[in-house]
Amino acid sequence: MPRRFRPDALTALGTRIFEAVGAPSDIAGIVARSLVDANLTGHDSHGVLRIPHYVERVRDGRVRPAVRPKVIEDRHAIGVVSGEWGFGQLAGRLAMDDAVRRAQEFGVGAVGVVRCNHFGRMGEYVERAADGGYVGLVWVGGLGQRAAVPHGGRRPTLGTNPIAVGFPVDGEHPVVVDFATTAVAAGKIMVARARHVPLPPGCIVDRDGRPTTDVEDFYAGGALLPAAGHKGFGLSVAAELLGQALTGADAIQDAPGREAVHGHSGALFMALDPGGMRPAADAKAQARRIVDRIRGIPPADGVDRVRTPGDPEVESRRARAGGFELPDATWSAIVECARSVGLRDDDLPQPA
Amino acid sequence: MPRRFRPDALTALGTRIFEAVGAPSDIAGIVARSLVDANLTGHDSHGVLRIPHYVERVRDGRVRPAVRPKVIEDRHAIGVVSGEWGFGQLAGRLAMDDAVRRAQEFGVGAVGVVRCNHFGRMGEYVERAADGGYVGLVWVGGLGQRAAVPHGGRRPTLGTNPIAVGFPVDGEHPVVVDFATTAVAAGKIMVARARHVPLPPGCIVDRDGRPTTDVEDFYAGGALLPAAGHKGFGLSVAAELLGQALTGADAIQDAPGREAVHGHSGALFMALDPGGMRPAADAKAQARRIVDRIRGIPPADGVDRVRTPGDPEVESRRARAGGFELPDATWSAIVECARSVGLRDDDLPQPA
Repeated sequence: MPRRFRPDALTALGTRIFEAVGAPSDIAGIVARSLVDANLTGHDSHGVLRIPHYVERVRDGRVRPAVRPKVIEDRHAIGVVSGEWGFGQLAGRLAMDDAVRRAQEFGVGAVGVVRCNHFGRMGEYVERAADGGYVGLVWVGGLGQRAAVPHGGRRPTLGTNPIAVGFPVDGEHPVVVDFATTAVAAGKIMVARARHVPLPPGCIVDRDGRPTTDVEDFYAGGALLPAAGHKGFGLSVAAELLGQALTGADAIQDAPGREAVHGHSGALFMALDPGGMRPAADAKAQARRIVDRIRGIPPADGVDRVRTPGDPEVESRRARAGGFELPDATWSAIVECARSVGLRDDDLPQPA
Repeated sequence: MPRRFRPDALTALGTRIFEAVGAPSDIAGIVARSLVDANLTGHDSHGVLRIPHYVERVRDGRVRPAVRPKVIEDRHAIGVVSGEWGFGQLAGRLAMDDAVRRAQEFGVGAVGVVRCNHFGRMGEYVERAADGGYVGLVWVGGLGQRAAVPHGGRRPTLGTNPIAVGFPVDGEHPVVVDFATTAVAAGKIMVARARHVPLPPGCIVDRDGRPTTDVEDFYAGGALLPAAGHKGFGLSVAAELLGQALTGADAIQDAPGREAVHGHSGALFMALDPGGMRPAADAKAQARRIVDRIRGIPPADGVDRVRTPGDPEVESRRARAGGFELPDATWSAIVECARSVGLRDDDLPQPA
């Protein structure tokens, strides 16, 4: 039976676990807060479920828990951030902040990220830009490994290659678009497996490239399908070109303890000044009119009301602020992970 | 029975028709070539089928056939182009060329377009950037009128809001991603109607918001569905924010002879220097390795081989270079249009 936990208790636990494997306190806190915030926004696939995975990656040398990212190229509106194989959350924050700084000076900024690990929920970074009053865009190429078949293909060769867009809105939360270019994100499959439920049709193929809904077929050599056939596939190819070929991530040769394919992943972070083409206040006011107009559309049968991108996350944050449930399998894995890094059982939070 | 025409004959005819309604020779030629090129790439929905529509728009005052677009804002890496209510093809070319010029100077350029009409095939502009060695991105907001329902909604309120990405590839044609964020483009529905065939499920709803495959339901007050549910919807909202709220297109008040919704449409054109983060030759070489790797994936059952975005257009250009067929309804409408602008029947091309 699922147990309910308070977000601050999970953040504290995650922080202690990451500290125990070598992360300085501030880095451990940033990563733990990022994962708990993913749960709060309703994206359990990118939430505390990942704590044991991150610890495993520290142990096998793929994540260097104490390093900090740095800007390694700086040319007008263009930059490159090296994540230095540290936690992706730090590289993502620096990349978006650097893109925003360039957008402040030039109107638009584009920053590549190389030597990166899992960023967590990509919506976090475009939301960060939009909360600061800027438009944010992200394209991630190859970081989800080679999990997806191309449109019309039988074997996987593309990552889940997510894209995200954030836009500030007058007087309320920003629009946040954030999705994998596959029909489902890999993390959603982890959630379905933990809950022992099948996937909807059109999400995965088995090891022979045949459509299936059984999650275990995915883990037995299966693969993800692109969203909307050639459209999701096109976005995925664009994400790999922008995240990897443009940034130079493919040329990185110093990936620690990992297969080449993962070490060659990268991302493109872009920011735009909403005041670059018109007064910024007018851009945000029009954004408000657009979301209000869309929300005013009568809902289809079986739908309570029309939501704009970012609304479900805000509703989830409100609903989960006092605590949220974790499936038994997720909590057991976190407990085991905590014990393995030396925490005692009375360090673990009690269900709320 | 469909008739087959040579592309140069159709370009000459289109040019004469646009000249007859007031376009200078160079503008008429650019627009006619753009439409014929859409046919050549296999996108009949954006091809010569549009000639009578364009003429109709000149007649009702919405398209000013003789005006030329101009740059009305110029701020570092940011610009705004006014299409001046002329043909969209000219605005699109100027916007992408201006974005590329800014990318040459700053590494990235972002150019909004306001006072615009139908651009034709969006892939044309990102292909233009990529043919010149640059990465191109386009987001179009609202130009397809309010033809699409939001995810979970019953009534239309969004355009087809297409997006496009072009990336140069070493030694061959660029990757060109170009699609409507709806399940199908409005033009594809025009093609299905001309051919009297039903649409696949999941593309449109009827006037009561219920799923249907009958094209006539669309013309009787129906609407388009977003591609892949919330994913296509998210892209569509992003396209409207970037194309309209960011650029200021919504604030334009001088739209001639048209409803406000169409006059407030806009687009964002972006260009990136592939040499901004690494040597440009390395970016293009890695793009080549990516497309070669994807094409090397064994095809799924019933597919002859895996194609990367842009491949189908190149194959179509090769197959159609000597001529291509037009459905009777399309050809009849063009003949009627030609006669209505004063062309004689012996000015019309003969089937090849």
